[in-house]
Amino acid sequence: MLNIKLEIEYDGTDFCGWQIQNRSQAKKASIQEVLEKALHKILQEKVRVIGSGRTDAGVHALGQIANFKTESKIPLKNIQRALNSILPSSVSIKNITSVKNSFHSCDSAKSKTYRYIILNRKTPSAFRNKFSWHIPYELDLKLMRSDARALVGRHNFKSFCASGSGAKTTVRTIKRLLVRRSSGILTIDIEADGFLYNMVRNIVGTLVEIGRGKIKKGSLCKILKAKNRTLAGPTAPARGLFLVRVEY
Amino acid sequence: MLNIKLEIEYDGTDFCGWQIQNRSQAKKASIQEVLEKALHKILQEKVRVIGSGRTDAGVHALGQIANFKTESKIPLKNIQRALNSILPSSVSIKNITSVKNSFHSCDSAKSKTYRYIILNRKTPSAFRNKFSWHIPYELDLKLMRSDARALVGRHNFKSFCASGSGAKTTVRTIKRLLVRRSSGILTIDIEADGFLYNMVRNIVGTLVEIGRGKIKKGSLCKILKAKNRTLAGPTAPARGLFLVRVEY
Repeated sequence: MLNIKLEIEYDGTDFCGWQIQNRSQAKKASIQEVLEKALHKILQEKVRVIGSGRTDAGVHALGQIANFKTESKIPLKNIQRALNSILPSSVSIKNITSVKNSFHSCDSAKSKTYRYIILNRKTPSAFRNKFSWHIPYELDLKLMRSDARALVGRHNFKSFCASGSGAKTTVRTIKRLLVRRSSGILTIDIEADGFLYNMVRNIVGTLVEIGRGKIKKGSLCKILKAKNRTLAGPTAPARGLFLVRVEY
Repeated sequence: MLNIKLEIEYDGTDFCGWQIQNRSQAKKASIQEVLEKALHKILQEKVRVIGSGRTDAGVHALGQIANFKTESKIPLKNIQRALNSILPSSVSIKNITSVKNSFHSCDSAKSKTYRYIILNRKTPSAFRNKFSWHIPYELDLKLMRSDARALVGRHNFKSFCASGSGAKTTVRTIKRLLVRRSSGILTIDIEADGFLYNMVRNIVGTLVEIGRGKIKKGSLCKILKAKNRTLAGPTAPARGLFLVRVEY
């Protein structure tokens, strides 16, 4: 029995997210679903693909990690080539490796990095619209950066967690939070040991309110301490969010 | 009467091309059509949008130029903002200016630059697949560059023109032809005083055959002189082609 690890890139625009949904409800396919179907075709055996975590409908990935177990003896490079030819062009397998039997994409993950892209200029972009949040008004980068510092470290992120999430604890550790701008593109990178449901999108929505002066400077620290979702800003749209990498 | 010039960016994936088609035949909309409809809504008057030239189904633009005449007194910045909010997210207006009455997007054009993108690496890319031609085998950049030189200058490009084109003459002047590679992305830029139907895609298809060794080095000069389309390589797919800029 082999344990196979995949590194996957996807444009999430036309998917209902990573996880298989009840198709009578979901009109779009999930990434997990198209992967399992393609692997079934190639390996002639039913496999269950385990992802490092779910990504929501419309969220993209530059380096999602997944693993599956198989009895197949097909060389890995051939599986990769076959997957890339069967999968929709919006999903591609960047890497395929054989890993220890104990490796589990979700349970073994030590940290994850998400990136949020804001197109911060007057005019929209035909090529970036599906992959960013277009904000035509000015954002104060310094304010956003200085407030964002309050989030780094081990905290209870309840204020940034969507209600109805089943998480046992809302305590997480943000290891790195970088806000930078380059020619109209504002990039927010967040690395943490784990993320709550909608956590990145809620943090970004709040940082944008700070950057445009709608929430006072220094508020982020108070919002964090309040452990109350209603104090934070709105949820940023899914299309600007990318799962960049998973570390093990 | 004002003459308004637009600089337009579009992701051509979901369009039947620039020009309005007979909708009983074309299942997809054209760029010209969505622009005219949006302008009709904003200006409350029927306008005819003239493009610098047609782009085919699936071809993209970074800087297509178009113009239209209007009696409207609405400030240009407001027209731009309204267009960008009405147009599909895959079309955006980068610039809007008022020009002399004699300006005609097509007839006044002095030169155009097209760019062709080849993703030249083993694995495809979920984000680049719609905007490039994925070629997984090695291409010899030096061979392509040295053969491409034969095309620069004033020549009869009949060998690279799709049959059935209504062009009066197949003589054109290529001012610049650049082939370069950067981390798996091969870019071919061609600037000319005008292009024949499928000319860029036929040149790229032929250069790829040279790069992979299927057509002998030095053949491009002979193919050009033969004035025979059947000698050139296949037509490269539309999705890798971008209209970059039009000079006046």
